Amino acid sequence: MLVSEKTGVNVMQEGHVTSPAGFSAGGVHCGLRRKKLDFGWLYSEVPAAAAGVYTTNSFQAAPLQVTKDAVAVENKLQAVVVNSANANACTGEQGMINALAMQKQAAEAMNLSPHLVGISSTGLIGVQLPMDKISTGINAVDLSVNQASLFEQAILTTDTITKHAAVSVEIDGKRITIGGAAKGSGMIHPNMATMLSYVTTDAAVEPEALQLLLSQTTDKTYNMITVDGDSSTNDTVLVMANGKQENKPLSPSHPEWDKFAEAFVIISEILAKKIARDGEGATKLIETAVKGAVSEEAAGKIAKTVISSNLVKTAVYGADPNWGRVVCAVGYSGEPVVPETVDVFLGDIQVVENGLPLDFSEEEATVYLENGTITITVDLKQGESEAVAWGCDLTYDYVKINASYRT
Amino acid sequence: MLVSEKTGVNVMQEGHVTSPAGFSAGGVHCGLRRKKLDFGWLYSEVPAAAAGVYTTNSFQAAPLQVTKDAVAVENKLQAVVVNSANANACTGEQGMINALAMQKQAAEAMNLSPHLVGISSTGLIGVQLPMDKISTGINAVDLSVNQASLFEQAILTTDTITKHAAVSVEIDGKRITIGGAAKGSGMIHPNMATMLSYVTTDAAVEPEALQLLLSQTTDKTYNMITVDGDSSTNDTVLVMANGKQENKPLSPSHPEWDKFAEAFVIISEILAKKIARDGEGATKLIETAVKGAVSEEAAGKIAKTVISSNLVKTAVYGADPNWGRVVCAVGYSGEPVVPETVDVFLGDIQVVENGLPLDFSEEEATVYLENGTITITVDLKQGESEAVAWGCDLTYDYVKINASYRT
Repeated sequence: MLVSEKTGVNVMQEGHVTSPAGFSAGGVHCGLRRKKLDFGWLYSEVPAAAAGVYTTNSFQAAPLQVTKDAVAVENKLQAVVVNSANANACTGEQGMINALAMQKQAAEAMNLSPHLVGISSTGLIGVQLPMDKISTGINAVDLSVNQASLFEQAILTTDTITKHAAVSVEIDGKRITIGGAAKGSGMIHPNMATMLSYVTTDAAVEPEALQLLLSQTTDKTYNMITVDGDSSTNDTVLVMANGKQENKPLSPSHPEWDKFAEAFVIISEILAKKIARDGEGATKLIETAVKGAVSEEAAGKIAKTVISSNLVKTAVYGADPNWGRVVCAVGYSGEPVVPETVDVFLGDIQVVENGLPLDFSEEEATVYLENGTITITVDLKQGESEAVAWGCDLTYDYVKINASYRT
Repeated sequence: MLVSEKTGVNVMQEGHVTSPAGFSAGGVHCGLRRKKLDFGWLYSEVPAAAAGVYTTNSFQAAPLQVTKDAVAVENKLQAVVVNSANANACTGEQGMINALAMQKQAAEAMNLSPHLVGISSTGLIGVQLPMDKISTGINAVDLSVNQASLFEQAILTTDTITKHAAVSVEIDGKRITIGGAAKGSGMIHPNMATMLSYVTTDAAVEPEALQLLLSQTTDKTYNMITVDGDSSTNDTVLVMANGKQENKPLSPSHPEWDKFAEAFVIISEILAKKIARDGEGATKLIETAVKGAVSEEAAGKIAKTVISSNLVKTAVYGADPNWGRVVCAVGYSGEPVVPETVDVFLGDIQVVENGLPLDFSEEEATVYLENGTITITVDLKQGESEAVAWGCDLTYDYVKINASYRT
């Protein structure tokens, strides 16, 4: 998505989760990981309107329930603390006790009511949180410093790079900013994966409108990425809007709501794509655009089916213009498809027309597939709806990383 | 499944598709592949009752339609010819013309009506069949020889071994035999994958009963295997029952129908497991058994979700007892699951009880996971239904094979 000239959303070159006014963040090493940072915090000067979306996995981790309950009290959060290396998932009653203790200790350290503190955990499943180390992390929280990059590092697991962004847009004559930090890597699939994303804004936003916007945006962005088809127990996207710009609180009845909503979609898409590109072992970002579908839902399902195909993913890794695997995945998506109208493009190179292969230059297509970003477009020519999904190639390194994660 | 003492089904040590009386088979090299055999035929002395199941992929290859139409004429087939290396899929009108020509030429060579000849193709998608080579194959058909192993080789693509089996059982005081040959390897997933299976029997079976038995058995066997989640355009299972044993034609009203049905399920399961074990790059067969489910459908969906998880597959490859990935896959299967009642076993080693990890010996579990066959059992303790699915580990070689299939 490009920046709209109409709405004037500006993508900042060096944006962070603390680019919006009134937010600070930091991260430390508390001993959960060998050397890397493993405990981070995000803080707003004032309570912020909050909204969240969470994994649909039946085995939802304890911190998600604790955070949901916290937000439910008055739709506000003022801080979030996050640990990596341990997911506090499949940990039963003790896991819930630990999650509540983590929230309570963090709240005390920041002098807040517990219900204003969200918590997240990511990492290995089924091991109780070592609460001494969590306490070490909490005791190291220092709200006088602001180092977003440390927060961004502390939330990572097998990610190779930090993921952050910020956009700004004028609302009520004030320049409001939306920032974000995320982590992803493995277990990434539609419906929230081992994915954490924190979005901040200094705009004032009505909580109900914020939740609705987040839910709708998630369906078009975070839920359209996949790394390996595995949806995790811990996926969470949290948004905090602290109102420091003192605009008239945003909701769909605000004349500039659409601008804000567009800015929100843009930053969500940027973060989602960064997660997909940094999938475990990935060397390429793959974008599958499906158009001409009878419904957005059908387009989305087909786009996700293609991006989830191990055969498509390995073909892209090998720079092999094996369009047959794309067509095959379109065919088993479960959505009704008319083979005789399907066109497929690799980048700008059309390889299939009306379900039949074209005599394209394999050499040219191979050169295209050696790029770092690959777009596969499927035009069903059956309707007007479209959708885009993002994923990555399947490589030796994916196998290497996941055949030895624990040991 | 073990041989039932009650029904006396006997699994033959060296069984082939031609073990039943009155069948012969052969294979040759016709030039579609560099050196390996690439054209095979299967023949019955007399017209045989026939039944088939076919891929649900929207892009169904031309030979499937031709075979379906042939069977539809009088529910009989007397021969099947198969080529590998080229799938005749996504080939449009010309593909259909070629498929019909392949059928017609083969029928002439064997002196049969075309509607008694089924055809299959497997291999690359989107390239027209080189009909000169197909003719070379057809001209080489020699019904005076009987070399099942050549047929079994000729139908392979990236398979590393041939897949064949036979069972026998007494019906009406006569020993009837069911034989089979199959190929699999990549694009293997529930609902028929690049999977071809040919099952023969010298029993007399009513065509409608044969079709029903095949459809029901397929749901429990071939449709419960997965290699990579990709369902191909060409999957086919064909059964031919030539009645050479002159038993009273079998149908559910025959007093020994259950024995025959069990024998049919046994051979189908043997072939399905052989396909799963020889998945592209696989080093291990994984069996996921889900029990205590509220319905067979739920059990099947969960079993297939676990066996399809790239993270579970890589963990098994790495002999890593990462039960968290199993639990996670159970959780995102889409079936309602109560985390607090879920037990998980790796072989006989219980690793999860009531949703919580047990303090099992990692060393012992790792040793178990180094076996060639791995069983993962999930007990939901919610009902009485169960299902089993089969798959394989995800390895470096899977990536290697599929990143360079065409080139």
